[in-house]
Amino acid sequence: MFSPSIKELVQALRVLPGVGPKSAQKMALHLLERDDAGAERLAKALRHALDNVVRCGDCRTLTESNQCDICADPERDSTRLCIVEAPADIAAIEATGQFQGRYFVLMGHLSPIDGIGPEELGLEKLERLVATLGVEEVILATGSTVEGEATCHYIAQLLKPHNVEVSRLAQGVPIGGELEYVDGNTLALALQGRKKL
Amino acid sequence: MFSPSIKELVQALRVLPGVGPKSAQKMALHLLERDDAGAERLAKALRHALDNVVRCGDCRTLTESNQCDICADPERDSTRLCIVEAPADIAAIEATGQFQGRYFVLMGHLSPIDGIGPEELGLEKLERLVATLGVEEVILATGSTVEGEATCHYIAQLLKPHNVEVSRLAQGVPIGGELEYVDGNTLALALQGRKKL
Repeated sequence: MFSPSIKELVQALRVLPGVGPKSAQKMALHLLERDDAGAERLAKALRHALDNVVRCGDCRTLTESNQCDICADPERDSTRLCIVEAPADIAAIEATGQFQGRYFVLMGHLSPIDGIGPEELGLEKLERLVATLGVEEVILATGSTVEGEATCHYIAQLLKPHNVEVSRLAQGVPIGGELEYVDGNTLALALQGRKKL
Repeated sequence: MFSPSIKELVQALRVLPGVGPKSAQKMALHLLERDDAGAERLAKALRHALDNVVRCGDCRTLTESNQCDICADPERDSTRLCIVEAPADIAAIEATGQFQGRYFVLMGHLSPIDGIGPEELGLEKLERLVATLGVEEVILATGSTVEGEATCHYIAQLLKPHNVEVSRLAQGVPIGGELEYVDGNTLALALQGRKKL
């Protein structure tokens, strides 16, 4: 029904997460029927990002120079290093305004089944960074998932010889969470980790 | 938090229908972190479609040559012309396998509030096409919406002097529709249009 380059655009749009065949067709036709300017902008933005975005040489986040803005900022506290799974996690933590240290991005979590081991997560680089920066505290901010926990434990073991304090984000009932709706595992953790008032 | 070309990619992805700021960020990071090849494919497909897709000179659908495959097919019945709002509607009707005629795509519907009048819908071209093809029946397959109905009535009036039969897709209860869940307007139409058995 559609010409080859429309079909290829529909297929290509399916690389986007959460986009199935129906939405991809809707997106392609929307761009070609009604939004030439938007399609042009998207094509240019993709091209530009593909040609310019690289990994930060220190923390491995996505950036456009050798060093990202945070790693290049002399005001940041180099003695605290927060380890996250993805660049979006940095954005979430920065939005809290509660952390002045630096980051290290794993770009994933340990997942032997997908062939993601310590090397893919740049853990050698992490060890070097901890040594060269003179890090005193490493905060493990991987996800509260099975893989996130496994990664967390692996890194904690790895850093033992480095004589740094290793901490983990607190786990418990989220703010605004009504106990009735909090899942059992979270509630069990919250109980175990209860604090004296 | 993100570098300028990542921010621009996030903004650019928002031209896609149904994509808000959160999904746009997720899509951009997915492409840059994990799917360089997919991003490359999407950038090329967009560029290629933008450079090659044009409107069919006869029916106004999206195509890559002067005439689309359907208009160029001598096997199609030129005496029947089906008028639809968008290229996706052609795909839907073709999928039924019930129509052997040709199409005319309005690329929208009458909507004075958005500045879409008879000229934007190519109605002059439609009149010329009806005359040159020797069309005997025009099937109005615009949407069952207020605008679709208005467009339908306008075109029916317009074609009166051309001495062609003008028909409209049947309206009623959809197949598999349980009466309980069919909306009142549809049910009223289905009653008015009841058929003797």
